[in-house]
Amino acid sequence: MEPTINSAQELIECSVPMKANKRTQPEPMQVNVNGVNIGGREVIIIAGPCAVESMEQLVETAVAVRKSSAKILRGGAFKPRTSPYSFQGLGEDGLKMLREISIETGLPVVTEIMDTRQIEIVCRYADMLQVGSRNMQNYPLLKEVGMTRKPVLLKRGMMATIEEFLLAAEYILSQGNGQVVLCERGIRTFETSTRNTLDLSAVPMLKRRSHLPVIVDPSHGTGLRWMVPAMAKAAVAAGADGLIMEVHYKPEEAFCDGHQSLSLGEFDQLMKDLKRVAQAVDRDISRQP
Amino acid sequence: MEPTINSAQELIECSVPMKANKRTQPEPMQVNVNGVNIGGREVIIIAGPCAVESMEQLVETAVAVRKSSAKILRGGAFKPRTSPYSFQGLGEDGLKMLREISIETGLPVVTEIMDTRQIEIVCRYADMLQVGSRNMQNYPLLKEVGMTRKPVLLKRGMMATIEEFLLAAEYILSQGNGQVVLCERGIRTFETSTRNTLDLSAVPMLKRRSHLPVIVDPSHGTGLRWMVPAMAKAAVAAGADGLIMEVHYKPEEAFCDGHQSLSLGEFDQLMKDLKRVAQAVDRDISRQP
Amino acid sequence: MEPTINSAQELIECSVPMKANKRTQPEPMQVNVNGVNIGGREVIIIAGPCAVESMEQLVETAVAVRKSSAKILRGGAFKPRTSPYSFQGLGEDGLKMLREISIETGLPVVTEIMDTRQIEIVCRYADMLQVGSRNMQNYPLLKEVGMTRKPVLLKRGMMATIEEFLLAAEYILSQGNGQVVLCERGIRTFETSTRNTLDLSAVPMLKRRSHLPVIVDPSHGTGLRWMVPAMAKAAVAAGADGLIMEVHYKPEEAFCDGHQSLSLGEFDQLMKDLKRVAQAVDRDISRQP
Amino acid sequence: MEPTINSAQELIECSVPMKANKRTQPEPMQVNVNGVNIGGREVIIIAGPCAVESMEQLVETAVAVRKSSAKILRGGAFKPRTSPYSFQGLGEDGLKMLREISIETGLPVVTEIMDTRQIEIVCRYADMLQVGSRNMQNYPLLKEVGMTRKPVLLKRGMMATIEEFLLAAEYILSQGNGQVVLCERGIRTFETSTRNTLDLSAVPMLKRRSHLPVIVDPSHGTGLRWMVPAMAKAAVAAGADGLIMEVHYKPEEAFCDGHQSLSLGEFDQLMKDLKRVAQAVDRDISRQP
Repeated sequence: MEPTINSAQELIECSVPMKANKRTQPEPMQVNVNGVNIGGREVIIIAGPCAVESMEQLVETAVAVRKSSAKILRGGAFKPRTSPYSFQGLGEDGLKMLREISIETGLPVVTEIMDTRQIEIVCRYADMLQVGSRNMQNYPLLKEVGMTRKPVLLKRGMMATIEEFLLAAEYILSQGNGQVVLCERGIRTFETSTRNTLDLSAVPMLKRRSHLPVIVDPSHGTGLRWMVPAMAKAAVAAGADGLIMEVHYKPEEAFCDGHQSLSLGEFDQLMKDLKRVAQAVDRDISRQP
Repeated sequence: MEPTINSAQELIECSVPMKANKRTQPEPMQVNVNGVNIGGREVIIIAGPCAVESMEQLVETAVAVRKSSAKILRGGAFKPRTSPYSFQGLGEDGLKMLREISIETGLPVVTEIMDTRQIEIVCRYADMLQVGSRNMQNYPLLKEVGMTRKPVLLKRGMMATIEEFLLAAEYILSQGNGQVVLCERGIRTFETSTRNTLDLSAVPMLKRRSHLPVIVDPSHGTGLRWMVPAMAKAAVAAGADGLIMEVHYKPEEAFCDGHQSLSLGEFDQLMKDLKRVAQAVDRDISRQP
Repeated sequence: MEPTINSAQELIECSVPMKANKRTQPEPMQVNVNGVNIGGREVIIIAGPCAVESMEQLVETAVAVRKSSAKILRGGAFKPRTSPYSFQGLGEDGLKMLREISIETGLPVVTEIMDTRQIEIVCRYADMLQVGSRNMQNYPLLKEVGMTRKPVLLKRGMMATIEEFLLAAEYILSQGNGQVVLCERGIRTFETSTRNTLDLSAVPMLKRRSHLPVIVDPSHGTGLRWMVPAMAKAAVAAGADGLIMEVHYKPEEAFCDGHQSLSLGEFDQLMKDLKRVAQAVDRDISRQP
Repeated sequence: MEPTINSAQELIECSVPMKANKRTQPEPMQVNVNGVNIGGREVIIIAGPCAVESMEQLVETAVAVRKSSAKILRGGAFKPRTSPYSFQGLGEDGLKMLREISIETGLPVVTEIMDTRQIEIVCRYADMLQVGSRNMQNYPLLKEVGMTRKPVLLKRGMMATIEEFLLAAEYILSQGNGQVVLCERGIRTFETSTRNTLDLSAVPMLKRRSHLPVIVDPSHGTGLRWMVPAMAKAAVAAGADGLIMEVHYKPEEAFCDGHQSLSLGEFDQLMKDLKRVAQAVDRDISRQP
């Protein structure tokens, strides 16, 4: 393995032409998720539960977040869990529920893919494929999603430098799929009062070095429900093209991540606050048509 | 993965009464720096050069930042430098220049103190004492500034947890000086594309756990001039009570930190942008009277 | 400052019975790799090139390391590379060469597996399956290797806690495959003078908390050829059950990791030195029969 | 502040002549602590309590560690504590006890200095001045100890790079005091199962880049009494010139750090084991004359 090239300068100077490099493609790009454009003037909000649990949960949450101006629905059917004894997701049943709710509400859906063998089935139901933090350097998986024509939400590994993050995106781009959205979701540091350390400087840094849109996940980035609003506002002020947040209709009963999920009421209030911040930096969050 | 929120919990539960703890003093406090209140509705901007270099430099910078609505002037007379062969500051001559310019412009001045033996002389000239990152756990120094009646700007150590940061403040408070402003200035992580990783989650976390005002230093936090505006806006959106930023009339000729100092023009533009963000979160940045 | 020994304590106290936990299985276990036992009195040395490049390279290296008392041959056929444009390995051709050389020299072979779809083919040729750092939390892959009956070499993720490392092993054990060897290979920290920070305290910690054998990779752990001997000796003194090291017959011509690979002569000298250290801690490194 | 120069190569290439650089002084140096040479063939063991508590404690501990072949006594009179409400040390009374016991046993004593104002008094009683981790970048203190003629034990900051550590030593050397011993004592990482992560690769790295002797502190480096022996042996195998360890005659009653202090019996057994490891790497630990 090669020593990491470690400054922005060096990457820009890198002689190998890179697709994720701004020198190759100087104009910011928009990624189209079934009609929703990420990377334009509008700040796109992706919301939904950590894991798909039931049709009731999904309907209640999706209808509410749509009303609060979320544009894309998130929800996990295959869950990567630190312990093999934790809830692992509903699998294909969860994917079917996501598809159904998407048809009903008109919200495109994004869901995580963990295994190259799941590509076909996840592509059948989802509008956007998420590659999670733990798989940011799962190269066979990156290549496989690079061979699909679905937009990809690539989360930064909790131990990945900006450089490695862009090279992970390059794995997808190099296979011909240019529709990649980068997501900062917190890195691991010595600090233990938050679940991760949300590195908002990644937003301007990634936007300077690459043409790809950049969004932020304040839910995993902090791990603390009460802190999500402050960091969501900060992310928008820093220039994020969107946010992905965990919202649950009954956070205290969530199968996972309830402690970092917003309630429907908290989410609605936050969306109003975010719209003001977005406008203060010449962006906007529009209502659903 | 499960969050390790142990420290926050433990500190709140801590049986020893702590002065920096919100349970002891639930109301947010304002720190008065010679007439400028930090911790109120107004977002206070502290600006100036890394080091005092000459009267000309100081006058040009101070007059300009004052016009752009900065409320306090910063400038180092004693400089902590990683190498013993780097410029170490002008010492007392620098302090005198700071005093003079303060009288001329009406801006209070904050400057760093590095040694218990400097207390008397620095107190003679400065309105606010800064304890830098490298000295956050210099306990004899913390006790000495705790025995003065000057407001203190305490910067987080680059390796300090939130818990340790509050305990450092406690050293000052325990000596009877309650006028402490906490400053997040970036922590050290594995990421090398920025000088430090600015941990903006420290802002809501510190404000939840303590009554002390919290400000942010995006200049040291990023080490990159072009990134300062994005992170300054993010800090205000996250709820910071103020910002401290390096501004130089000729950044390319600065004795130190020129690469992270804003020019006078960049600073003026940023202040206009910051005012909009401040208002979007129900704060304000007012003009000098 | 007070130690935060929470994880060790919690894991031991964990109510869910865990297979990787010493409370469940208090006796140290030996893992049998085609006749070579890891976890007994003997310190087992695994050596070979980063990547399989050619039959010539493999023969020269294998014969030499065998003569110097290495007991298992390593070599990558599928290589995880940070950049998609770097050499990705010889694939099945590489696996065949490994098998051939194994038959010729009698050395069992260990090679990395990166994708659930490679299980069948890698099992056909290898004696031991390696799950690399980047895949330590690739749960579908862990489950698949857990369903084979091949011994597994599981490398610690570069930002994985001891707790997460043991839980990754648990994914394999929970599927019925108990033949897991844990490998410390350096973690990511702020320090940049070495490629990673080799965390040798992981050796006593893992051996206290689990019955699984623990080995160390000083090649990736340091990234510096000249430093490998010092850290290899330290690992054995700390109680490691074995070492895995990169050795190349022409390091300066290696396709990858040449800067951290020992030459055949350096390796031979190191083995003599290691034998002395092993004996000083009541272990041994025996000659090939 | 200047961006850190980050590779060994760069430092060696550095144009400013540096006193701590091997290019300037290629021969390893020995530091003489009142007759005990650190940096020669002999591995020097420094042992004693975290803090001086009483004459009884000091006598019992000093006599016992001397008998087990320790060559220098450690003990804190001024203690840096994270909380202002923890035991802060006996001050000058503690220093006097150290002097007395030194005369009685013939062991030179090393003790920590935290404040430039303590220089005179500490120099009066101690044979070697310790600058602790938290003060590694307390530049006024480094300069002051650099102006004395006492040997200095400089501990690495818990988040200091190798480069910064050498530059801190340079502060002392630049004032004319060349008698500096470097001490690795664990760095701060994301791992929480140990108090710090003992970075043993610092030993070969420092010895390659500087002529100064290097010792290791496995007590603070791990924070766990049961782990000290494994890491002490590893440090010697890695090439350390000495060790500093916390030993207490009644660890369970220690005022501080009892959980990481060895009992007298544990220390005696460890010394026997260390002697074997030292001899396996062509060093030695000799008995007191």
